[in-house]
This record gives sequence, C-alpha cells and structure tokens, in this order.
Amino acid sequence: MSETPTAVVLLSGGLDSATCLAVAKRDGFAPVGLAIDYGQRHRCELDASKRVAEAMHADVRTIRVDLRAFGGSALTDNIDVPKDRGEHEISSEIPVTYVPARNLVFLSLATGLCEVLGAQNLYIGVNQLDYSGYPDCRGEFIASFQNAANLATKAGVEGKGVTVRTPLIDLTKAEIIRLGTELGVDYSLTVSCYDPSPEGKACGRCDSCTLRKRGFEQAGIPDPTRYA
Amino acid sequence: MSETPTAVVLLSGGLDSATCLAVAKRDGFAPVGLAIDYGQRHRCELDASKRVAEAMHADVRTIRVDLRAFGGSALTDNIDVPKDRGEHEISSEIPVTYVPARNLVFLSLATGLCEVLGAQNLYIGVNQLDYSGYPDCRGEFIASFQNAANLATKAGVEGKGVTVRTPLIDLTKAEIIRLGTELGVDYSLTVSCYDPSPEGKACGRCDSCTLRKRGFEQAGIPDPTRYA
Repeated sequence: MSETPTAVVLLSGGLDSATCLAVAKRDGFAPVGLAIDYGQRHRCELDASKRVAEAMHADVRTIRVDLRAFGGSALTDNIDVPKDRGEHEISSEIPVTYVPARNLVFLSLATGLCEVLGAQNLYIGVNQLDYSGYPDCRGEFIASFQNAANLATKAGVEGKGVTVRTPLIDLTKAEIIRLGTELGVDYSLTVSCYDPSPEGKACGRCDSCTLRKRGFEQAGIPDPTRYA
Repeated sequence: MSETPTAVVLLSGGLDSATCLAVAKRDGFAPVGLAIDYGQRHRCELDASKRVAEAMHADVRTIRVDLRAFGGSALTDNIDVPKDRGEHEISSEIPVTYVPARNLVFLSLATGLCEVLGAQNLYIGVNQLDYSGYPDCRGEFIASFQNAANLATKAGVEGKGVTVRTPLIDLTKAEIIRLGTELGVDYSLTVSCYDPSPEGKACGRCDSCTLRKRGFEQAGIPDPTRYA
C-alpha cells in the first residue's frame, strides 16, 4: 500500500535537469524522466538524458514534437549560436537560442504524462537567477502554468492535479552544482552546450557553456565537461 | 502598411474548428490553420483539416506530436469508443475519449506558432455547452491558459502576446451550425466522428456523431455527413 509515489522530471540532458532528477529522488519520489525530441540541432542531449536517467536508476520516456516545423530559434534552425559573450550580455536580453513557447509545450506534455501515470508531482530544472533571459524560466510563469494545467485535466478537476516543483529556481549555477554533487550526480554524463561537436564535445564558448564553466569555478568543483 | 493581421486557428477537421476558421476570416484576419498530428486513430481528420483550409483559402501547417506514446485515451489507443449513449450520459462525466492534457498541448503549440508568425490572435473552437465533459473546453481554463502563455513567451513579455479567442464557447451545436452556414462553411468537408470507417464515413453512434446529428436537426439544416 505504501508504494513510492511517482514524479515526472523533465530531462534535457543538461546539468540542471540532472540535478532536478536527483532532488526528486531525495524528496522520496520514484522519478520518471521525460526527454523531449523537439528537433533540436544538438541531438546528443537526448542520449545524455538517457545516460543520466540510467545512472540514477530512473525510467525515461521520450516524446517527439517537431518544433523545427515552426522555426524561429538558433536551437532548431541554421542560425548561428552566439559565442564569447560576457555575463552582462548573456543576462540582458532574450537570445536567439530562445525556442518559442518551449517550456510551455514541455510542461504541457509533462502534465499529460503525469495524468497518465497518476503522478501529482512534476519537476522542472528552471532557474531565474542564471536564466539567460528566457521568460519561461520565471517563477511567475510556472505558478500560472500550474493553475492552467489543473483546470485543463481530468486529474485536476478531480482534485488530483499536479504540483510543479522548481527546486533550482533561486539557486546560482554554483549552488546547483554543489547540490547535485552532494546528491551524487555525475555531471560528466550531462551536455549543456548549445553547439556541441558531432562527438558531443562542448564548444566552451556559447552562453550555456559560459554559465556552466563559471558555475564549476565558483563552486570550486572540477569541471568534468569534455571541451572541443 | 495595412497588411491583414494573421491569426492562428486550431483545426481538428471537425465542424467546430471549421466554423472557427470562418469566424476568424469574418473578423478580418488572414487565418493560418494549425492541424495537429498527435497519433490519433481517426487520421482522416488531418485530411479534413486540409480540405477545410483549402476551401477557405487559408494556409495550413501540420505539426506532429506523438501523444500515443503516453496512451490513456480511446482516441489514441485500442480502447472501444462508446456508442449509442443518451444526452444525459454524454454530458455527465469525462469519457474515455478524453486525451490527457490535449488542449493544453495544442494551445501551447499554437502559442509557439503565433509567436513565430507574429500573430496576436489564436482561435480555438471549444464550447462549454455541448462540451461532452472535457475540462479543457471551459472558459475558465482558456483564460488561465492565456495568462500562462503570455508569461511564457518573448512576445508576451514584449507586450505582443496572444489573445485566445473562443467564438463558439457559449453556442449550442445548432447555433454553431447556423453561424457556419451563414459564413459559407461546407460541412460536408468536415469529419467529427470518433470512430470513422477506413473510407472516412461517420459511425453515426459515438458521442461526437450524436451531438453533430442532433445539431443539424435542431438547426433545421440538412446534415451532409456521410454515414456508414
């Protein structure tokens, strides 16, 4: 009768979502990872999601949604990923790596999976400090989404809706890395780079690499990333 | 300079969304239909969406998202579609044809397309009177979704977010049919049936057929549906 409750954890193959998966386990859930194949150029992140889930003995589901059909982002189209930007530039505007409505779509899909699995907890590794200017990483959006999700679903109507958990939302990248390290996350399995080499090596120069590198430096933890 | 503004219209191939497309044109928009290939068993509705858009000289985009990977619905799985139910039964509970989080996912995708096209109007043909017990057809959900969508997107942050328009929300099926007929909708192109024959003929007995048939009767308009 006291079965471990399931939680759905959105997995991107990156550092934040891997930490989130570890937090969901720490919180006492049996996590099911959800990886989204949205036509991203950096496909190695799907493999990274599977490696991360496997290392933490979690199930992983992959769902396909072709956001490339819309275009409008450097992460799905042939638009150059910005490189070598300073901290101020990174945080001052919404970059071309923004994918229209991405977290809205991802959370909606995760809500559907929660309903099918009977899961009432949904983890997403957004953070609004090092958020790089993405509007869909803000707590205000997450709270509003949770409200909409619970009006949309049969589970919500029946009082068994989802709680969207964002354990990283107010942490710095360094704090996230320290937390994950304490919880045993193997960050060498993760890929954060927006423009990795075909072999999955990180460029070291895009916004995501810049934030990740700085995070390991500030945490005082060796950076296991394979740079090109 | 006075270009006709674009609106995105969610198209299901059915009667309601065809009417919605006609309303968007009447409202002065250049509508772009969005058909969602979600792994539905009744695939002929995708062809219907294209026929409907073509007849109204509207562009149509199709996006694929594999909701079948989740399961949990008679519309995607091998679960029997209920037949020959009375009006009371149809409206009294959420049926097995409910697809988890479907309108949440569809509206999220449409929000992304709006942002890419610079469209600030999004039409969806939900109605809460003949809503057959689907929670994601209620006005309360739509209002909450619009709020979340505009917090999620770059367009929303920049004050160019979407308005979700639901012109059919308080109409009966008969009123919808009268409205569409006035606007020149050819309902013979639409498919509402949950369980059509391989040739696209309607079963005449599922909840959707029952509501549609009754709507034509009450509107006093000949029903052009091809029944099996």
